[in-house]
Amino acid sequence: MAEVVAEREFALNLKERREQVKMDRSALADLLEISTDRLADWENGRGLENLTLQEMSRLAETLGTSIGALAPEAENDLENGALYQLPDQRSVLKGVRGGTDYYVYHCLVRTRTAPSMVPLVVDVLVDDPKEAKFNDGHAGSEFIFVLEGEVHMMWGDPENPNETVLPTGSSLYLEPYVRHAFTATEGSGGARLLAVNF
Amino acid sequence: MAEVVAEREFALNLKERREQVKMDRSALADLLEISTDRLADWENGRGLENLTLQEMSRLAETLGTSIGALAPEAENDLENGALYQLPDQRSVLKGVRGGTDYYVYHCLVRTRTAPSMVPLVVDVLVDDPKEAKFNDGHAGSEFIFVLEGEVHMMWGDPENPNETVLPTGSSLYLEPYVRHAFTATEGSGGARLLAVNF
Amino acid sequence: MAEVVAEREFALNLKERREQVKMDRSALADLLEISTDRLADWENGRGLENLTLQEMSRLAETLGTSIGALAPEAENDLENGALYQLPDQRSVLKGVRGGTDYYVYHCLVRTRTAPSMVPLVVDVLVDDPKEAKFNDGHAGSEFIFVLEGEVHMMWGDPENPNETVLPTGSSLYLEPYVRHAFTATEGSGGARLLAVNF
Amino acid sequence: MAEVVAEREFALNLKERREQVKMDRSALADLLEISTDRLADWENGRGLENLTLQEMSRLAETLGTSIGALAPEAENDLENGALYQLPDQRSVLKGVRGGTDYYVYHCLVRTRTAPSMVPLVVDVLVDDPKEAKFNDGHAGSEFIFVLEGEVHMMWGDPENPNETVLPTGSSLYLEPYVRHAFTATEGSGGARLLAVNF
Repeated sequence: MAEVVAEREFALNLKERREQVKMDRSALADLLEISTDRLADWENGRGLENLTLQEMSRLAETLGTSIGALAPEAENDLENGALYQLPDQRSVLKGVRGGTDYYVYHCLVRTRTAPSMVPLVVDVLVDDPKEAKFNDGHAGSEFIFVLEGEVHMMWGDPENPNETVLPTGSSLYLEPYVRHAFTATEGSGGARLLAVNF
Repeated sequence: MAEVVAEREFALNLKERREQVKMDRSALADLLEISTDRLADWENGRGLENLTLQEMSRLAETLGTSIGALAPEAENDLENGALYQLPDQRSVLKGVRGGTDYYVYHCLVRTRTAPSMVPLVVDVLVDDPKEAKFNDGHAGSEFIFVLEGEVHMMWGDPENPNETVLPTGSSLYLEPYVRHAFTATEGSGGARLLAVNF
Repeated sequence: MAEVVAEREFALNLKERREQVKMDRSALADLLEISTDRLADWENGRGLENLTLQEMSRLAETLGTSIGALAPEAENDLENGALYQLPDQRSVLKGVRGGTDYYVYHCLVRTRTAPSMVPLVVDVLVDDPKEAKFNDGHAGSEFIFVLEGEVHMMWGDPENPNETVLPTGSSLYLEPYVRHAFTATEGSGGARLLAVNF
Repeated sequence: MAEVVAEREFALNLKERREQVKMDRSALADLLEISTDRLADWENGRGLENLTLQEMSRLAETLGTSIGALAPEAENDLENGALYQLPDQRSVLKGVRGGTDYYVYHCLVRTRTAPSMVPLVVDVLVDDPKEAKFNDGHAGSEFIFVLEGEVHMMWGDPENPNETVLPTGSSLYLEPYVRHAFTATEGSGGARLLAVNF
């Protein structure tokens, strides 16, 4: 189902862009080295299921735009504007860093209508700040709330980081691309936090 | 301190906009019915501390732009890209709806660099879905995580809402402008959730 | 060449998104009903040239995002930040409306780095406002400058339009999605305008 | 009239932001060191005409946001979605660079609903590329169309610029912040171009 919608939207976007740049079908077909009939099929949503990344890339280039501008938007997966996840629907993944089990991630609700929102419950397994492993930072802002235990946070330059201790109930904002690392405080046996990337 | 920065930025934005629209000082001063000297002062950051909302509004209108485009950006309140709040720094506010104590809000970390992020721990005091009070929806998306208890959520049209029950550990996404109401499930004695508007 | 870049970028975006949502390769491969080896190939930029729109659509859906977020950005076609077009490089297209030759479009410089900018010189062939044909409006703002002749403009509701006459040297701004129609003024023999969509 | 609208909008934004961050009036008034009555007046649109930049700056800071987020949007100056300017409504300004008359600017239509759009007809007075004066680049993209004469364009690093000659009918795109300079070609007596910043 979703695929058919994707093709229909692609077909509409393709035709709209061609008309916007005042190209007629035969001119565009010539530039693409395909037949006018094939292009007409595409614009009517036929034969798009097997359109390849290479062909899309060339189409976008020829029309002076990006694949993203031609591609369909993500489908709405909300129910009347909301989407929820029950606790037993969480998927769980080990976060291994430098060969050791470092975090356990419990993945919370996600939606295609706000794909940059990625919320996680994170079990912080290591309780020794000397074992802290920095990530490389990431696009998107991050909000953190300490659910259980006491977190030792480091951020900035791993060679010379800022550091602080965050007890249960603390909250934190991290700007995009700030490198950071969490452990539980020394000997505390672990901690748990909620992280919302957005 | 912050005020002086605000004036300097306003002065720079004013001059830049005037030059962008190719107006000279005397022409702009004439349109504003002020002296060229006064405008020159403003563009050099002098006398702006008492510039009023009315004067700004007229300046923006005359320069064909908005106050927001002339006004200074919010100052960065981060420390090396991060900002945290300890639990004892939370401010707490009663959320009264329709005359009854309905929520208690515990305000978590906020930053001027991402003002739309407003995270809260919310105590849900009412444990009867028949007493649910809808809000009017709001700009911005909302993420919810159930910290304690069991939440009865309603959303959409208050006359004919969608409903669900969210046990501890559930998570939820709400689109902007979706009306919603939370209570604890009937007779459960209350619940607690974490809400992040972003 | 461009295709190889497209595949490399797609591969990076795919891996980054999978890691962002804390899915491991075997879990994603299972959901996609492909082998882990095939997914590993994709993430290393191999075998992507024939990835189809259907496969991309499913990948995006499974990763909770859009094709646009996975697809490569448009390649930069500027030369040190600029791109120009000489007069003899213009392509020309007839704009037929309702069976009559209505406009002639001369397509000016376009760049993939700002694809919504579409500038045109437009010959307005019809010189009778009673023959005006409205378009349906379009996304994007439009700036118009009358290069030659006198233009009769109508806009808004075609049943009850606003109207004005714009002599040579007039300029005009049109908001997105405002329907409009141009002719030359009655009996004037045609006009020419420059239109910049942005 | 516009000022009253500005005050009403500011009042609404102020109240909305205070409620969004779950602050009650007395708490905010305390932080601002003003009386609760005064704040209540502001939120009801009274006494705002003389609110100063300093007071706004402090309000925004206390509410964790920017002046721009509290200030009113620019008023719509369009007529049914369009705005035009007749040739005799243009204002004209000399563009002096390094003490010499370098350009003459004829300012075309501008609208507060799209303030970054600044279209100009520019008379290029100097016809010797050796006299070229670079600007510092600017925010916003720029489209150029050569209306009359032949333009000598330089762009990039003034010490080692790219150069080209653009005859009448040429068009050009310039990325934000690219430094550039125009003269007419040597001995040609001047040129005229249309520039649209957007």
